[in-house]
Amino acid sequence: MRILIIGANGTIGRAVSAELQARHQIITAGRNSGELRVNMADLASVQAMYAAAGPLDAVVSAAGNVHFGALAEFTPEQYQIGLQDKLLGQVNLVLAGQHLLNDGGSFTLTSGILGEEPIVYGSGASMANAALEGFVRSAAIELRRGLRINVVSPTVLTESLPEHAPYFRGFESAPAARVALAYSKSVEGANSGKVYKVQ
Amino acid sequence: MRILIIGANGTIGRAVSAELQARHQIITAGRNSGELRVNMADLASVQAMYAAAGPLDAVVSAAGNVHFGALAEFTPEQYQIGLQDKLLGQVNLVLAGQHLLNDGGSFTLTSGILGEEPIVYGSGASMANAALEGFVRSAAIELRRGLRINVVSPTVLTESLPEHAPYFRGFESAPAARVALAYSKSVEGANSGKVYKVQ
Repeated sequence: MRILIIGANGTIGRAVSAELQARHQIITAGRNSGELRVNMADLASVQAMYAAAGPLDAVVSAAGNVHFGALAEFTPEQYQIGLQDKLLGQVNLVLAGQHLLNDGGSFTLTSGILGEEPIVYGSGASMANAALEGFVRSAAIELRRGLRINVVSPTVLTESLPEHAPYFRGFESAPAARVALAYSKSVEGANSGKVYKVQ
Repeated sequence: MRILIIGANGTIGRAVSAELQARHQIITAGRNSGELRVNMADLASVQAMYAAAGPLDAVVSAAGNVHFGALAEFTPEQYQIGLQDKLLGQVNLVLAGQHLLNDGGSFTLTSGILGEEPIVYGSGASMANAALEGFVRSAAIELRRGLRINVVSPTVLTESLPEHAPYFRGFESAPAARVALAYSKSVEGANSGKVYKVQ
């Protein structure tokens, strides 16, 4: 398969590349690095990325920003960051890609454990992650030509604990290499509309 | 209790008013009707509404628009309708209200069954509804002064079947009066962070 990975230089993206590259052709993309550059929040940029990528059998997204902050001080503009970038950015990959992927191709997006299990300062992530899962369940029943879509919801990465542990006390972490297996399950399996939780 | 109902003139809003008005003082609000007028998507408008409403013990929202359309033709701008109005509109009620409600007060928002069970043309609703539930779970752990927050997720209303039945084949409908009981459970109960499904 020809597989496009957006966010390929992130901790998850590198692990997914490592998992899939022995069996498939990987094309890397990202905001600041990768073979192709893309601003996911801009549909025209996403369309240009697809035009440059050529025929694809799978799209994996491990990209998207959200704002973290106290609910008491959160602003609508801060919620927009997660909605425009992590949510609609990944949605844009589907809106444009549904017309371009090879028959039977797949989209694998990324949400996160905060969608179902909140932490303090995480309301922007909880909102965007849950929204992604609702979108994926819905898009799965409308995609044509055998296209599939799933979303991976990872717990906090073991690699992120040095920075993020104080916010995730009591959460079991998962190494990115283990999280990457869920992306393999989505890309190389046959399910659609699933939320693959890695906890 | 002094209870503000936004969307008070809608099918759900009228049923919630009918359920609660025998025991509480109701203040009605809406975009085009009600004692107070508000554009939920505009935080300044929400703040003006609260200033006019005076002290409140509970806020109920049964308001918010989403766009319905085929995934193959959906645009980012059409997803924005649900995100800015139904999602961030209701979130604005919480952002402003968390500083104004009386101690122990509550927010009760409205999502909908499409957040978990999709229909064709419903991806905008699935996204916004699921996002609301993620937000409510998260906001519940950060609200102070004993403030609570829940969300009601109703199935298709029996009153809406004449118009919407073709999109909801096989779904059990619920009359608005039955849906209104879930709002009573949220406002007059003591839970927080719950999704009250009425199916």
